[in-house]
Amino acid sequence: MAFGERLTEATRKVGTPLCVGIDPRWESLPLEIRKNKGGATPDSLQAVADAYEEFSLSVLDLVHGFTGVIKPQMAFFEAAGPPGLAALGRVMARARERGYFTILDGKRGDIASTAEAYAQAGLGGALHAGLNFPVWLSDSLTVNPYLGADAVEPFIHEARKVDGGLFILVRTSNPGSGLFQSLECQGETLWQRVARQVGAWGQVDASGLADVGAVVGATQPAELAWMRQNLPAVPLLVPGYGAQGGALEALKPAFGPKGAGAVVNSSRGVLFPFKPEASDWRDKIRQSAAKSACELAGVSGMGAP
Amino acid sequence: MAFGERLTEATRKVGTPLCVGIDPRWESLPLEIRKNKGGATPDSLQAVADAYEEFSLSVLDLVHGFTGVIKPQMAFFEAAGPPGLAALGRVMARARERGYFTILDGKRGDIASTAEAYAQAGLGGALHAGLNFPVWLSDSLTVNPYLGADAVEPFIHEARKVDGGLFILVRTSNPGSGLFQSLECQGETLWQRVARQVGAWGQVDASGLADVGAVVGATQPAELAWMRQNLPAVPLLVPGYGAQGGALEALKPAFGPKGAGAVVNSSRGVLFPFKPEASDWRDKIRQSAAKSACELAGVSGMGAP
Repeated sequence: MAFGERLTEATRKVGTPLCVGIDPRWESLPLEIRKNKGGATPDSLQAVADAYEEFSLSVLDLVHGFTGVIKPQMAFFEAAGPPGLAALGRVMARARERGYFTILDGKRGDIASTAEAYAQAGLGGALHAGLNFPVWLSDSLTVNPYLGADAVEPFIHEARKVDGGLFILVRTSNPGSGLFQSLECQGETLWQRVARQVGAWGQVDASGLADVGAVVGATQPAELAWMRQNLPAVPLLVPGYGAQGGALEALKPAFGPKGAGAVVNSSRGVLFPFKPEASDWRDKIRQSAAKSACELAGVSGMGAP
Repeated sequence: MAFGERLTEATRKVGTPLCVGIDPRWESLPLEIRKNKGGATPDSLQAVADAYEEFSLSVLDLVHGFTGVIKPQMAFFEAAGPPGLAALGRVMARARERGYFTILDGKRGDIASTAEAYAQAGLGGALHAGLNFPVWLSDSLTVNPYLGADAVEPFIHEARKVDGGLFILVRTSNPGSGLFQSLECQGETLWQRVARQVGAWGQVDASGLADVGAVVGATQPAELAWMRQNLPAVPLLVPGYGAQGGALEALKPAFGPKGAGAVVNSSRGVLFPFKPEASDWRDKIRQSAAKSACELAGVSGMGAP
């Protein structure tokens, strides 16, 4: 199945455009998990990585049925060093086994054969002597566009080999995202330029969606509306809902007919609705996932999950 | 010692602004190393990672005395998966032991606490429950500016804790780098805007150099001259010399008095001046490093090494 169809199916089968971000943070983890791993304070990077893995695998179970899309944030696994990245590999494998559509959030970007190395590792497995060794095997990656077309194209090339796709940073959710992204550049803003290029890069499949999408923050409702109106085939990855302050109503313009065309990420809002000492953290995650799934089903027009 | 002083010393002690990029690529490695590691074609990611480590550690020995600055490219280690990243950890440790100044080239960029996670991992060791576990411990990182000030500032904050620094992507060396970087934005090009912001972010130390530098490609001589003239305190990381086609003479404008203020990276040119079947690959690497060191000593005005 082509990328757009797979993304659409991943949201339709659970009836909500929710995407759950996997952002493990030591200080927010349940004490119960921290205690199992070398005491409440970790004694090694391995202990941190083990706790991240245990928590992330639990989340994949707890949110099942409430989301079809999972977005692991590479930075937190990288901060736990090589053991953390080994843990990420196991989290990605479990996500595939459980049937999630995956967005590996690394915001990578480099040139030529270097971009190819990131893309192969992220999507299809790296090639060494013509042999393909899978690394992360994600369905899609986030990519930074600043380096230009010859930096993004190796990612597109690798993605198409595996019916995968990309989400290019267009207008990010952080308060200072406008510093460069909102500059007026030859008649339009930089982010609009980038967005049009994203539109030109993508190939649209039977779902009506392209295989090159855009990251546009929930904190930017006017930008979401512009995207949907001008580039209806570009799938949107919308971070910043919930903890980052994006309001539910502001998300409305992101969606096409029947809630298609956008996934809305929540990381902290779903993952950490409890105090570390709480023993009912599993229930809290289930409840927060169900609530986010339901709210987003409503605002997207996709119907109740 | 402050960042600019450390960078200056790293080049002065070998008398050349050469920076050697560590970009292991399976298909370019000496057959001798590939044969030791599971045959000429690897049988696992671990075999790839082992070969990358053996080659990279050899390079650190072979180029010693010809360069003071080493720039490992994370993408190639990431393409060898978690074992590759464990190998990178050992390569970084050896580089420190041998007294190299390190630039970890990951071109990371993300927001708020996510940027902090990358920055801590890259520079100072990640914090978990207030404990600091070193991960890559690089002296400096490359960072992508597209997300804005609140994405770069966590990197600056972490860098200052350890007298480290950053090199922000300004004008990259790839042929298509102008797509966005050269757009005219409110009176100047995007890369000039980014460059001025880089200038504003940095703190200048006794060396006359700031702790926030810029990546400007060797393929862009006019841009190098502009940087040196307008932002004399911003240290430059100049990739693209050699294999990517940047000419030696074109580098001249990058340097301040006595060759200060810029390091010039060569990866393939130094690493792979041999056919994989050559048995004298060690000599070839030593020779190519010596030649690059000498050429760059000349053009920079730093004098012979």
